[in-house]
Order: sequence, then structure tokens, then C-alpha cells
Amino acid sequence: MRTLWDHRYAQRTQRMGSSAIRELLKLTEQPEIISFAGGLPAPDVFPIEEVSQACERVLAESGAQALQYGTTEGFQPLREMIARRSMRYGLEITEENVLITSGSQQALDLLGRIFINRGDHILVENPTYLGAIQAWNAVGAEFVPVAVDHDGMVTDALEEAMRTGPKFIYVLPNFQNPTGVTLSLERRKRLVEIADRHGVPIVEDDPYGQLRFEGEHLPTVVRLDNEHRCNGDPCYRGNVIYLSTFSKTLSPGLRLAWVVAPPEVIRKLVQAKQGADLHTATFNQMIAFEVAREGFLDRHVRLIREVYRERRNVMLQAMEETFPQAVQWTRPQGGLFLWATLPEGMKSADVLQDAIAEKVAFVPGSPFFSKGGGENTMRLNFSNATPAKIREGMARLGRVLQRRMSG
Amino acid sequence: MRTLWDHRYAQRTQRMGSSAIRELLKLTEQPEIISFAGGLPAPDVFPIEEVSQACERVLAESGAQALQYGTTEGFQPLREMIARRSMRYGLEITEENVLITSGSQQALDLLGRIFINRGDHILVENPTYLGAIQAWNAVGAEFVPVAVDHDGMVTDALEEAMRTGPKFIYVLPNFQNPTGVTLSLERRKRLVEIADRHGVPIVEDDPYGQLRFEGEHLPTVVRLDNEHRCNGDPCYRGNVIYLSTFSKTLSPGLRLAWVVAPPEVIRKLVQAKQGADLHTATFNQMIAFEVAREGFLDRHVRLIREVYRERRNVMLQAMEETFPQAVQWTRPQGGLFLWATLPEGMKSADVLQDAIAEKVAFVPGSPFFSKGGGENTMRLNFSNATPAKIREGMARLGRVLQRRMSG
Repeated sequence: MRTLWDHRYAQRTQRMGSSAIRELLKLTEQPEIISFAGGLPAPDVFPIEEVSQACERVLAESGAQALQYGTTEGFQPLREMIARRSMRYGLEITEENVLITSGSQQALDLLGRIFINRGDHILVENPTYLGAIQAWNAVGAEFVPVAVDHDGMVTDALEEAMRTGPKFIYVLPNFQNPTGVTLSLERRKRLVEIADRHGVPIVEDDPYGQLRFEGEHLPTVVRLDNEHRCNGDPCYRGNVIYLSTFSKTLSPGLRLAWVVAPPEVIRKLVQAKQGADLHTATFNQMIAFEVAREGFLDRHVRLIREVYRERRNVMLQAMEETFPQAVQWTRPQGGLFLWATLPEGMKSADVLQDAIAEKVAFVPGSPFFSKGGGENTMRLNFSNATPAKIREGMARLGRVLQRRMSG
Repeated sequence: MRTLWDHRYAQRTQRMGSSAIRELLKLTEQPEIISFAGGLPAPDVFPIEEVSQACERVLAESGAQALQYGTTEGFQPLREMIARRSMRYGLEITEENVLITSGSQQALDLLGRIFINRGDHILVENPTYLGAIQAWNAVGAEFVPVAVDHDGMVTDALEEAMRTGPKFIYVLPNFQNPTGVTLSLERRKRLVEIADRHGVPIVEDDPYGQLRFEGEHLPTVVRLDNEHRCNGDPCYRGNVIYLSTFSKTLSPGLRLAWVVAPPEVIRKLVQAKQGADLHTATFNQMIAFEVAREGFLDRHVRLIREVYRERRNVMLQAMEETFPQAVQWTRPQGGLFLWATLPEGMKSADVLQDAIAEKVAFVPGSPFFSKGGGENTMRLNFSNATPAKIREGMARLGRVLQRRMSG
């Protein structure tokens, strides 16, 4: 049915991207399908009991505040707690450096609104997080992709990319979505050095940093940037905006994340957020504060790491056993995803068609490439399904690939 | 401290509006101030017990779902419930016509993103809701203000305003924010007739419609638009997008509202929302569904109406007793706000300075005028403070005004 709205869409609406893969992914939501497509945490480890107790306490003690409008900046005690905990990571900040957002997606969206003019160059890993591409496409960003290998963004390629005069560099250093790779310490230092020399700021997106289940924790880019200038003392010089979230440690369904930025940037983000959704749900912020403040989350993260390590191991083993030799994949030391590369010329979107018929699903990799390419890649999530489901699903996917590649 | 971000703000960031009044309003947050400045519901009537029970039930029965990522469209049972209830108001819709948003502010923001190109004309009441001005300024809207009197938007002025070729008309027909006035039935019909003749669609924002505590309920604009074409049968022809919210009936701190629109518009809004915040908190949607589904909200709204009627009465009586004769004000039949007009040439921002010194606050009216003006107006909220506080606050404000006007 035609309505008066039909011919009234804004130009930017055309840039919101095609939905071919989105339509395909809808098919993966059928209950009998084993899906490695989403980016869902394991529901088995959601702290339901702790959240339930927190709800009861928050409503009993501060119900009127929890259900009322709140400030755009966020619930003050939660902001203070985040600032305090950032000291652990060598960041000397106060609550004035912290904005609570409705998930990290909103942080990306607000950053796009306040910084990106149409045509601005943004340096991104190739591939990079799809949500950033979506959010910044809407404001007309021109992406400059920088290659990624097993040690993360190839910093040797960065110098050349800097010639485009980028507004900022966007990087996911830990267990990157979608590839699962981690930026090496050497490259982190090199990234900070190059960015500093060119005077280009960085947005560091770190949703998975705490979920390292193997190897040694590496310092964040924001910390290295400070050390670069502060001789190793805790400080925050403000040229790296740092994003993190409660979605992977507490619950994604509460929609809670945060931005660390210079106070002036926070003020602009607050103005943008005021027009976007006024503020993030007060109740949810109070729940997160209540759950986190006694140190429960620190203990809980250790449990999540155990569970995810096992699932990654099961997935890797299943791949060894069932995938054709010509397929390659990453071996993440944390996070939620791994990344497989099919032989050149083979299309993962075609494989997905076959896979859905076999009741197994994944995400084709090409949407994660901001300028196209990657048709032979695929992202596999190992956090959501149980080990038994992972084994069964990977066996199905192995059969599909074997058939495709022998056919 | 200067950072690399300082000179990198996007052009649209300049359009985000000045913060002079925002700074002034921060002063009103001191605890000893009696504030009529905000738009806060009465915390006394928040259904804390019912929300607490709902949390317990949702987490016990569907905790893993409540804490997990959800679909961008919203929690399916909640969308279905909203669609079903819309039948009461003569709207025949399904869940495909409903999108759950993170408060109505997000609905305004998403509508701006998908429909407004820079320079597009948007017809608005003069004054109109500040949040719409903020959200649509960010995408470069050019507002065309249409006068408002005691019967709402002056539809006789509409025909002339239509000559600007507006993209859509934005109207708050019930107990409008900020003036508290209601669009008369006759004018509603006239609005629908003029809009239809010119082929211009309407966005109807109705956060307060259920909070009528006096007089007869009037049909929504969306319903009249349908009757205009459907001969009185329930239908939805899609030219009016209708916005409503749980903020004023359940709790603003949960950040839950909804849009009713044609399915194609919903699809575009979903794409925009995906980039903005992925989805609205699953947990909160399940709580609202749980609280609303047994009919509790219908009963609860009757209590809210009683409380607000008394508070409005107390405020009106205090104004009669303490305000200088030269001040005029509206007499809302519902909602949260009333509107006072000072003598020409007197500035309400100056009055606010004095008022803060006397520990009472309100919002100066001028920011609600999209093209300036209204320096002698003020918005007063009567829902938030108790009757005793309202009496005391209005006595203080009366003294401030008497002094100003005799001085």
C-alpha cells in the first residue's frame, strides 16, 4: 500500500545499506538451526540470580529514583565506579571523562554524529566491526581500510593510509570482531607512534578485552598513548577515546556501555545523546552498579573465560576434523569469534545457502569489509552454543564445505 | 587542556544549540530548590511493587531471554499487545506497524534521520516540544512555526504555512508540551482535511493522551485521518505516524516508547535504529509487558489522573492567589504542564535568576519557539511536586513576580 511517506525519505536513508544478508540471516533464527551467526554471549552464564537480587534491592531502597528520568551523562555512582576502575589500567580519569551509553553501538553512533562530516576519511581495520560501518555510513563517512593479519592491523600499511588525512583511526585491538585477532604489543606501540606523529586521534573499541582466556593481557592503546607522554605514570591525555561495555561481562539485554573521553568531548556527546534518547535507563544503570560494586563481576568474568575457552577449543577441534584442508582460520586468544577463509573464488554467501538447508548458519564475511571484498570469508561465533551443539553444527558445516569443494 | 579532538567536530555539532538555559537549569537541581522546571512524573505513584514483582517473574521464568540481545523491532509480545490495544482507538494494525523505541525522544530522532534532509521544512506548533527541535536541528530541519492558542494549533494559519512545501506536520494534540493546551475536535478535523488535500503527512506525538483528568476524550488525529477515508471502520491508512510512550503511565526510567507507522516506514526506522543502539533493552520490554498485560496499567492510569488533577488545581489556585494580575496562564485538562505569559517586554529568563535566589524554578519558554520569540513565557510542571511543595513554591514565585512588576 502506498502512503504519503513513500517518496519522502532523506538521502541518507539510501546509504543505510542493503539488506540481502539481513534477509538471509532471518532464516537462521529458525529454532532447529544451529547458528554461529550472531554475536550472542552464552546465556548459560548470565548472572540471573544476582540481577534478580539487585532489582529487588534497587527497587526497595531507591525505587522512585530508579523509575524516574535521570541525567544524560549517566548514573553518577556508576560513572565514578568506572573512573575508579580505569586506574587499574593506568588511566587517571574522573567521572567527567565518562559517559554511559545505551550499548556501545550508541557510542559509535554519537561519535559519528559529533565528529564525522560527509566525506571525512576514517581509517578502519579491513575487515572491521559492521556496526561501526553502519553507524558511520549514515553520516557519510569515507572509509579507508587498512589490512589485518594474524597480529591485527598491519601498521606498516598505516603510514600510507595516513596520506588521506583521516579524521580518526578506529581500532579493535583485542579479539577483534569479526576476525578474532589481537593487535600485537609492538604494533600497538607503532600505532600510537604513527598516530601521534601525524596528529590523528584514535577511537579504541574494546568490548572483549576482559575475555582473554589464553596468553598475556596486553596494555590498551589508550594506556600506551598516555605512557608515550606521561613517562609511565597514570594519566589521560585525551587523544584516544576508549569504548567498553557491560554487554559481554554482565548482560547485553540491559544495553549498558561507556565512553572514556576528554571532558569537552563528553559534553558534546551528552548534547548529541540528549537529542538521541535523553538518557540511558536509570533502572538498568543502578542494577549494573549494584551487581558490580561488590566485585562480583570480576569473579564472574573468570567463569565466562572458562566457558568460552572450552567452546573455542571445541570449535577449533571440530574444524580440524571436519573442514577441508584448503580452508584457513584464526585461533583467537579471547572474545567471541573466529574467522575462516575459503579458497579464492569460493563465495561464503553461497555456502550459507547450503548451510541453512543443513540447519547450520554463520555470517558471510563481506559486509565487514568497508569497501567490498572478502566474499570468501566467514565469521563463526563460538560463545553462544553449547559444546555439543558446536560439535554437531561444525560437523554439518564441514559436510557442506566438503561437498562444495569436491563438487 | 587541548586535545586532537578539539578542531575535529562535525559541522552539525555547531547546530546542537546553545547551552545557556541548560546551564541555568543545572542550578535548579540543588535539593533545597522547589523545581517546576523538569517534566518529571510524580514519583509517589510509580508502581514500584508491581515492577519488582515483574522483575522477579521475568527473571525466574525467562531470565536468559531477558538478559540476551533482542531484535531491533522490539519484544514481539509487547508489539502485539500495543497493536491489539490500538484497536480501542479505532486503529486496525498488527505488530508490523509497531516499533519499540528507547523513549519517544528516540522515535523523534529516528524519524528525523530517515525523513529530514538539510533544509527540509517541518511544520510545528509555536511553541513546540523542545526535544523535537533538538533532534531535528541536528539533521538540519528548517522549522515553519504555526501559531498556537487555547484550542491548540491555529488551523486557519496552516493553509498559508503549507505553501512552504513541508515534508511533514508535527503536532502534539493533547495537553501539549509546553503549553498544556489541547487541539479542539473541530481543528483536528480541519488539520486532517488540509493535510490530506495538500498530500502532506503528519507525525502525531501523544505522550499524555491517557492523562486527561477533565473533559471528554477526543479522538486522535490518526483515527480521524482514518475515518476520513475508511467511513468510520477501524483501519490504518498510514499517513499519520503516531507516537506514544510508557514514560508517563508506567515509568520514564525504563525508557520505553513506541511508533505506529506503515510497515515500510517501520522497516526504515528499524535500519536506522540498528545503527543507533541495536535494540531497546529486552529486560525492560519484558517488564513492561508483564506489568501491563493483566490490565494493571489501565487501573494505574486512573490513580495518576487523580493525583495530577489535584496538583494542577493546587497550582492554579496558588496562581490566582499570588500572581500579579498582568500574568496570564493556560488551564490544561490533562498532562503535566501549564504555561504562563508575562507582560510584553518582561523576560522570563531574568525572572528565573530571581526565582533561583528564592529557591524556586521553572523553564523559560523561549527555547520552545523554533524560530525565537516567547521571551516573556514560562513553562510550569505540576506533576512532580507534592501539593504542599506546589503551594510553597508558587508563593515564592508569586513574590518574585510581584517584586519584578512593582519594581
